[in-house]
Amino acid sequence: MSPDDQRKLDQLCVNTIRLLAVDMVEAARSGHPGLPLGAAPLAFVLWTRFLRHNPENPAWPNRDRFILSAGHGSALLYALLHLSGYDLPLAALRDFRQWDSLTPGHPEYGLTPGVEATSGPLGQGFTMGVGMALAETFLAQRFNRPGYDLIDHYTYALVSDGDLMEGISSEAASLAGTLGLGKIVYLYDDNGISIEGSTDLAFTEDVSLRFQAYGWQVIRVADGNDLDALAKAITNARGEKEKPSLIMVKTNLGYGSPKQDSAACHGEPLGREATNKTKEFFGWPPEADFHVPDEVWERFRQVREKGRAAQEQWQNLFSAYKAIHQADAETFDRWRRGDPPDGWTEALPFFDPGTAPLATRSASGRVLNALAEHLPNLIGGSADLAPSNKTYLEGYPALGQGRAGGRNIHFGVREHAMGAMVNGLALHGGVIPYGGTFLVFSDYMRPAIRLAALMKTRSIFVFTHDSIGVGEDGPTHQPVEHLAALRAIPGLTVIRPADANETVAAWRVALQNQGPTALILTRQNLPVLDAGGLNLFESVARGAYVLADCKGQPDVILIATGSEVHLALAARRRLAVEGVTTWIVSMPSWELFAAQPVDYREQVLPARVKARLAIEAGVSMGWRRWTGDLGGTVSVDRFGVSAPGERIFKEFGFTPENVAARAKEILAAAKAAVK
Amino acid sequence: MSPDDQRKLDQLCVNTIRLLAVDMVEAARSGHPGLPLGAAPLAFVLWTRFLRHNPENPAWPNRDRFILSAGHGSALLYALLHLSGYDLPLAALRDFRQWDSLTPGHPEYGLTPGVEATSGPLGQGFTMGVGMALAETFLAQRFNRPGYDLIDHYTYALVSDGDLMEGISSEAASLAGTLGLGKIVYLYDDNGISIEGSTDLAFTEDVSLRFQAYGWQVIRVADGNDLDALAKAITNARGEKEKPSLIMVKTNLGYGSPKQDSAACHGEPLGREATNKTKEFFGWPPEADFHVPDEVWERFRQVREKGRAAQEQWQNLFSAYKAIHQADAETFDRWRRGDPPDGWTEALPFFDPGTAPLATRSASGRVLNALAEHLPNLIGGSADLAPSNKTYLEGYPALGQGRAGGRNIHFGVREHAMGAMVNGLALHGGVIPYGGTFLVFSDYMRPAIRLAALMKTRSIFVFTHDSIGVGEDGPTHQPVEHLAALRAIPGLTVIRPADANETVAAWRVALQNQGPTALILTRQNLPVLDAGGLNLFESVARGAYVLADCKGQPDVILIATGSEVHLALAARRRLAVEGVTTWIVSMPSWELFAAQPVDYREQVLPARVKARLAIEAGVSMGWRRWTGDLGGTVSVDRFGVSAPGERIFKEFGFTPENVAARAKEILAAAKAAVK
Repeated sequence: MSPDDQRKLDQLCVNTIRLLAVDMVEAARSGHPGLPLGAAPLAFVLWTRFLRHNPENPAWPNRDRFILSAGHGSALLYALLHLSGYDLPLAALRDFRQWDSLTPGHPEYGLTPGVEATSGPLGQGFTMGVGMALAETFLAQRFNRPGYDLIDHYTYALVSDGDLMEGISSEAASLAGTLGLGKIVYLYDDNGISIEGSTDLAFTEDVSLRFQAYGWQVIRVADGNDLDALAKAITNARGEKEKPSLIMVKTNLGYGSPKQDSAACHGEPLGREATNKTKEFFGWPPEADFHVPDEVWERFRQVREKGRAAQEQWQNLFSAYKAIHQADAETFDRWRRGDPPDGWTEALPFFDPGTAPLATRSASGRVLNALAEHLPNLIGGSADLAPSNKTYLEGYPALGQGRAGGRNIHFGVREHAMGAMVNGLALHGGVIPYGGTFLVFSDYMRPAIRLAALMKTRSIFVFTHDSIGVGEDGPTHQPVEHLAALRAIPGLTVIRPADANETVAAWRVALQNQGPTALILTRQNLPVLDAGGLNLFESVARGAYVLADCKGQPDVILIATGSEVHLALAARRRLAVEGVTTWIVSMPSWELFAAQPVDYREQVLPARVKARLAIEAGVSMGWRRWTGDLGGTVSVDRFGVSAPGERIFKEFGFTPENVAARAKEILAAAKAAVK
Repeated sequence: MSPDDQRKLDQLCVNTIRLLAVDMVEAARSGHPGLPLGAAPLAFVLWTRFLRHNPENPAWPNRDRFILSAGHGSALLYALLHLSGYDLPLAALRDFRQWDSLTPGHPEYGLTPGVEATSGPLGQGFTMGVGMALAETFLAQRFNRPGYDLIDHYTYALVSDGDLMEGISSEAASLAGTLGLGKIVYLYDDNGISIEGSTDLAFTEDVSLRFQAYGWQVIRVADGNDLDALAKAITNARGEKEKPSLIMVKTNLGYGSPKQDSAACHGEPLGREATNKTKEFFGWPPEADFHVPDEVWERFRQVREKGRAAQEQWQNLFSAYKAIHQADAETFDRWRRGDPPDGWTEALPFFDPGTAPLATRSASGRVLNALAEHLPNLIGGSADLAPSNKTYLEGYPALGQGRAGGRNIHFGVREHAMGAMVNGLALHGGVIPYGGTFLVFSDYMRPAIRLAALMKTRSIFVFTHDSIGVGEDGPTHQPVEHLAALRAIPGLTVIRPADANETVAAWRVALQNQGPTALILTRQNLPVLDAGGLNLFESVARGAYVLADCKGQPDVILIATGSEVHLALAARRRLAVEGVTTWIVSMPSWELFAAQPVDYREQVLPARVKARLAIEAGVSMGWRRWTGDLGGTVSVDRFGVSAPGERIFKEFGFTPENVAARAKEILAAAKAAVK
């Protein structure tokens, strides 16, 4: 094919992508046509000339990652996936944004083959990509041998002005620069338009200078329709291995449509008339919906074959590697499957009830360090609170540029980026990531926690300093509503262990979870409970259990979580003296308990026992579910205060006296109600 | 006094501040001595040579604002407030971080005189300052006349590396640059140390270049102990009126202590021995706790007098202004008191039940625009979703540099900064600020919402697109847990109106609220309810009311919020046919209802009616409180999906058929239970 014919064919491919996207949005009568029209050229060049992927096997571990951080441009991604040969038939494109389709409004990981991350909430995709690139760095350090670059791929993303305005991207960009993640290549769709109008209304910063300040290479492409310039820019970006690269591509939102360069083509269909004019502009037959010219199919068939060949080549490399480095190859396979080695649970510590009191954050740190050797792909860190969160893996270097064997991630004071990077690490596969901060700052990373739940990634969040027990740092640092707010997120497992051994069990649950887990841990020391003959692994995994019972049915059930379990036990002793019998239910996890069969739940909270008191140093919201109408709570339905923790607990009614008194009140009221 | 003596005295003052802070932390056995030791010189220079404030009247409207964004350095601020003559006696300093003291671990607005904002969660103070500076711009534009600069003050802050790492600060800095907020002067305490060690571990970006990219003036001070260099830098920063200024001051964390330049002196007391050595270093008598030399008192007395004179001068200016511009002066006074003009509520629209269905977001837009003229200090905007959030004030320009009469704020895609800026605007006083985005993105601004609740600012948050009704945009854009998560925040009033008139009433509540309000509004159209003779202003203000009753007691109470009230009404018609009597309780606000007297609550939800069904397109969490053990919910306890909104509602059981069926189930079960 002559260069000129090649150029024409390329252009035809670009326009096919554009108009598939337009047709999808028209068919759905909903969506975002502007981005695909403007960004199709850059996406086409990237996907056909650079992206190493095998559409027949989206799980190939050494594939390049591509994230559409500007997830509202999903029609662009679906068009690319369809043409590239992923298992996404034309029918799915026709069904864009409909019930039960494979083509939702924003890309969803786990639903559509080839979608690497759920995106749409801006800045998340940008940041998950940084996590993926960090996973690549870690795995390459671990497995690559001279001549055998088992893991050696790029992480690409298409990002928008909205992505760059969001603070999370600033956090991630600064950290990516610090870590020298040179295999990041992000294409910025610089179209100058945001929903309220020109980006100049709110965004006049010098993006290039800003990213240079973060330590990135910045490359400009003045004309987003110039395929060769785009190719050259991507080549240059790939050539720089020490710094992440941002390619700023000047594009036109809604290119070729009558609404070009206006916010009007951002988030709604062009409409029949404008669609026809757009098709006319691109020389398309107006009646041809979802039209893919044969030569375009042929062009993408070649790309598909290139992808297949790339993976075959890699498989050969892997076979050769396996012959020489058998153990490493087996480890590699196990890590990518996400399986822990046999017997890893043997390494979990056990704390004798005679052990000196210790904070659950400290127990968590002990678990992490006990497992470090046995789960060598467990990596993570804290948002600059490692000494407080106890998240440091002792004896291992920091992960990042040029630090072999690194496993500790210094996220900096960047909770939000940490959350999304943990998700990106998990999405990449091969690693078990965690990230820690104070529970009160889970608010800073909430959008990332939500995405973890939506994507069902095995993201582990370590939240310490879990109540007013924080003490002197005061209400800005004392969580009160955060347990409730986290429990409200569907699919997130929240576990607040009561002592060191429950913490061990909680970590076990988290590591085996098919979704994200939030571990809620104390700052203050707690005694190690004597759980008698109970199997704590099983008990904690069931979410709640009877820690202390009595002969027959109790007068009152005291339900508590975390540090308050000890308070419940103290109140029980006091109540026993007065002849009031109790059960103590330790309930580290609502979600796990709610998932148990009815009969187990009935064993733990018998329907006939109406006098129930929940004790938790957080808001009472939601507890009624477990206490019932006749029950009550000892809770914190206000903000905390700055004072020593013990003092606050006392002033807020977290004393054995008050708990016992409340229990007796509830018992009396329940008796009266039943009469 | 000779220049040399002056220098010596200044140094004595600086050291007094340092050692007061050290003594506070030692006395509390808790706190952060490192920052005060390093940053005392810059704080001293700013407070004594530049800050225009009157410690005897912390409410003087034209005072300069100072925010300690690095709130963990609170001991520094308290030492300054004490020495400057604010009503903060030495006893309060001795009582640092104790129960019921005026000196909590992090500065708290409303508690300690002279504290302009609650800070500690990093980045919030930085961003609230941007909001304050924007309020200053707005008020100066509105009130200043030639020769009468009624509002003309600076906004200063002390910021740390942690502040600059947080994404929210990036958002705010970019917007401050775009808006040209030249009266911002921020001092960056560049000590090179974070909690995990050197900032190089996670933060190697070129901060100067980054802020230049945002459009800031950046000034460096190489030696944070050089008082004259600091003064020169602040003078230069003040001189630049078109750009915000960042002064990067190289300091030493824990200066003068044996733990200088190490993370060890960041967040814990120095200890007895190191304290003594530190006092020795500064030539302090080791036994002198909380020591303030007489000449230091004298020096600060002069500063106090300067402050008193400054306000007197301003009062004279104001009197002269009043003589010429009486109406403006009265408006100024009313705005600073926060009072609306008489009869403003007359301007609120009323929607006749015959009106075509409209979304509550549209009704909200109508309220805003109806009030715009009557409440001319109502200003706000959206995080780049104004056309969707309906937050635009028609006919008014954008607020910002050089745009007279501007009231619309284009926050950009920066929800978090928007939240904190709204708080800063409210804290400044004189304006009624609001900010809008999609409800699902309330997660992005949650730390700011929490601070609004903690500070009790009249921040108004407009959250539209409030449920699965969002439709095609899918689960990333459909809130499900957000109502619960917002309700969990103590002190936040959450209102989800059911129609246009409830929306009007909700705005009325928000504008009169002594704290923050979250308005939760639909994307989809809703009919205007026929509320009969009900006073909706009163009914909504009470949080819940019986919208439709029946003769005597009902079989079932259907409780609903927002768009689901209409569904409840449809189910009621269906149930009536089958002889099941119902009440419909519209419950726009849990918080408002919970605050009503018991007898009102009993009127709305009579204890004897156990068959209650709550209908809300969100998670069921917390509803048991209102439905009781025998009640139930029609709710969304999972993530949404991408499809047309009506389809999702149907698939998720939000149909009159299903609601009626569930109501009958509940009725049957309740009857069985009572038997």
